[in-house]
Amino acid sequence: MNTSDFKNSSQQIPNRLLLGPGPSNTPPRVLTAMNQPMLGYLDPVFLELMDETMELLRGVFGTENQLTFPVSATGSAGMEATLCNLIEPGDEIIVCVNGFFGARIADIVKRCRGKLHVVEGDWGNIIDPEDVENKLNAVNAKIVCIVHAETSTGVLQPLDDISAMAKRNDALLLVDCVTSLGGVPVNLDASGIDVAYSCTQKCLGGPPGLSPVSFSDRAVEIIHKRKTEIQSFYLDMRLLSNYWGKERVYHHTAPISMNYAINEALKLVEEEGLTQRYHRHQLHSQALAAGLESIGIERIAQEGHRAPMLTSVSIPDGVDDAGIRRRLLEEYNIEIGGGLGVFKGKAWRIGLMGESCRKESVIRLLSALEDLLPDVTQLAAVEAAEKVYAAE
Amino acid sequence: MNTSDFKNSSQQIPNRLLLGPGPSNTPPRVLTAMNQPMLGYLDPVFLELMDETMELLRGVFGTENQLTFPVSATGSAGMEATLCNLIEPGDEIIVCVNGFFGARIADIVKRCRGKLHVVEGDWGNIIDPEDVENKLNAVNAKIVCIVHAETSTGVLQPLDDISAMAKRNDALLLVDCVTSLGGVPVNLDASGIDVAYSCTQKCLGGPPGLSPVSFSDRAVEIIHKRKTEIQSFYLDMRLLSNYWGKERVYHHTAPISMNYAINEALKLVEEEGLTQRYHRHQLHSQALAAGLESIGIERIAQEGHRAPMLTSVSIPDGVDDAGIRRRLLEEYNIEIGGGLGVFKGKAWRIGLMGESCRKESVIRLLSALEDLLPDVTQLAAVEAAEKVYAAE
Repeated sequence: MNTSDFKNSSQQIPNRLLLGPGPSNTPPRVLTAMNQPMLGYLDPVFLELMDETMELLRGVFGTENQLTFPVSATGSAGMEATLCNLIEPGDEIIVCVNGFFGARIADIVKRCRGKLHVVEGDWGNIIDPEDVENKLNAVNAKIVCIVHAETSTGVLQPLDDISAMAKRNDALLLVDCVTSLGGVPVNLDASGIDVAYSCTQKCLGGPPGLSPVSFSDRAVEIIHKRKTEIQSFYLDMRLLSNYWGKERVYHHTAPISMNYAINEALKLVEEEGLTQRYHRHQLHSQALAAGLESIGIERIAQEGHRAPMLTSVSIPDGVDDAGIRRRLLEEYNIEIGGGLGVFKGKAWRIGLMGESCRKESVIRLLSALEDLLPDVTQLAAVEAAEKVYAAE
Repeated sequence: MNTSDFKNSSQQIPNRLLLGPGPSNTPPRVLTAMNQPMLGYLDPVFLELMDETMELLRGVFGTENQLTFPVSATGSAGMEATLCNLIEPGDEIIVCVNGFFGARIADIVKRCRGKLHVVEGDWGNIIDPEDVENKLNAVNAKIVCIVHAETSTGVLQPLDDISAMAKRNDALLLVDCVTSLGGVPVNLDASGIDVAYSCTQKCLGGPPGLSPVSFSDRAVEIIHKRKTEIQSFYLDMRLLSNYWGKERVYHHTAPISMNYAINEALKLVEEEGLTQRYHRHQLHSQALAAGLESIGIERIAQEGHRAPMLTSVSIPDGVDDAGIRRRLLEEYNIEIGGGLGVFKGKAWRIGLMGESCRKESVIRLLSALEDLLPDVTQLAAVEAAEKVYAAE
């Protein structure tokens, strides 16, 4: 490489409309927050911002859990953090798998040397609570793990029955809220969810880089009573809670700018109000669905259990998956997601999350698809979406 | 908490001069890079930026190692990433411990179920290569781990002898370059270092949030031949190398803004030139030392083995550690670091790293110390520093 290639170069980052599975577009106020001067990780001003972020996160998680803070890495690290702190070798763990991220939880359970028990569901369908009950009756489970909104399928899992079952069997309920948090209600305390993790770059509208987690007091107690060492130092909650708690004991250098960003993103969530934010995700999702259906693009997720922030659709017969997505990106500056796992090449995943969840996004995407797909009447999809907005 | 507290609030981040153990001040061009629009983690523009970052990192690491990229978490995660990928349960691992971060390596080795063998050194002194040789003769070590610049003591460890010994004993050499990278030469290939990790927020001048790592082909081969699973999913190099390599297989959502930042920070390093950058760290460190000595503040690290970017000093008798550091921060907007571990309450750690490593920093700090410390002649320290600059 010729190093002079870099002289005086500056990055030329295009303005994409991000309608994939995340990241969503980052609001200007959040970008601006990252443009602030650096602080030390023990600076009183930064410590105050940490406390404020914890309180804002409790609000959006719907919890009073003391141990609620953003882990210093992305959502998958949050998944690993919750699991590796709670699981000791040989613990019986039930994992519900009806998509790519349920399978990832199962993978990590094995890496933590838990004894894995899978409850399977079809991709695109919810997990049947009865199957969870049967498994709970068959094994002495310490934890039941389940994904709230499966990013690979667009399914939104009902949690109430499963939460009650876990409680009856004295098992912890651990929920993946990566895609749901900030887009649909996630009421940890009211729903009896003991442990949850999420990300910053989807419905919360931050940049990717942190993973909010929350542990109930009961879960914290289980961590403190472990007989074996937590296998990860970086994700060790006993140590991390001494930095995020009153003790302020150095553990690692927090990603300061990322914390400015999540703090500002959470303030935007707070200012909009959760009810209004959930309504917004619902509305634009309905308009998008109406538009897509009008041009023969069908949703994959089970009816009645569709996550508003992520619409998964079958790619119409004869349509070139990669070709259409490339043209959307290159010619229209719009990103949508391809299929993951068993849906690879068969599905598109369209995200309407956080800042990206707005009427302009729906209209721009439908209009582009009208251009790009064969045998589609111009304006058919846009008009179908407009009807949903008019009825609002 | 009254949620209206947050309405229209904006963060009020003060402009600190960061002269602690890191983060250092972030250059404006790097802050601006983070203020750019979000991209998807498979966007061709982002993939190109990833490739460029890997190439720039190879330059500053002094290596042609293919597997050279920033892990999506802070420096301690880089430490854990290198160790947990290489260590299988029962492997014999030698860890050199003469400070806080050597001790952290030893802790993680145990969490990876490696068989730990410690070579101890006094805090403030280098590790004696002879002690390493003796340990290598006594055990069948798979890896020798050592810290290049100990952030807790300011000691810069010579590596050549130890590298030759490791090679003779067919052990991998794993080096912590968290504080050294970008401030002193780190020539992985020329020095025979097999594995290294660093951070972004010290001498590279980025914000904290990523951890550059580099693995030699030999180390990569060892990872691929493992008989046991890597205990971390998030840090699994076999999976990560499929995202940072040509395959571009989704593993986790990369922290996009952090990658803009490290890319820009590395371009600044490249533009300055490594030789000039190393000289700058040396010069200002000498000026600082001259100033401190002139007012009776003594360095702790062994003479001849002092890391230029981190000067550790004894707190003068009768001086209130926390009080002086608080006044420096509140009245002068200057951060310096307190002591860690056995140096807690006994040492200050003064960093001159990256953007913070400049004459203005030296003069501002010395001048503030002249104000704050008892029985110090005004301008004595500043004049001693100026003499070093004049001789340059």
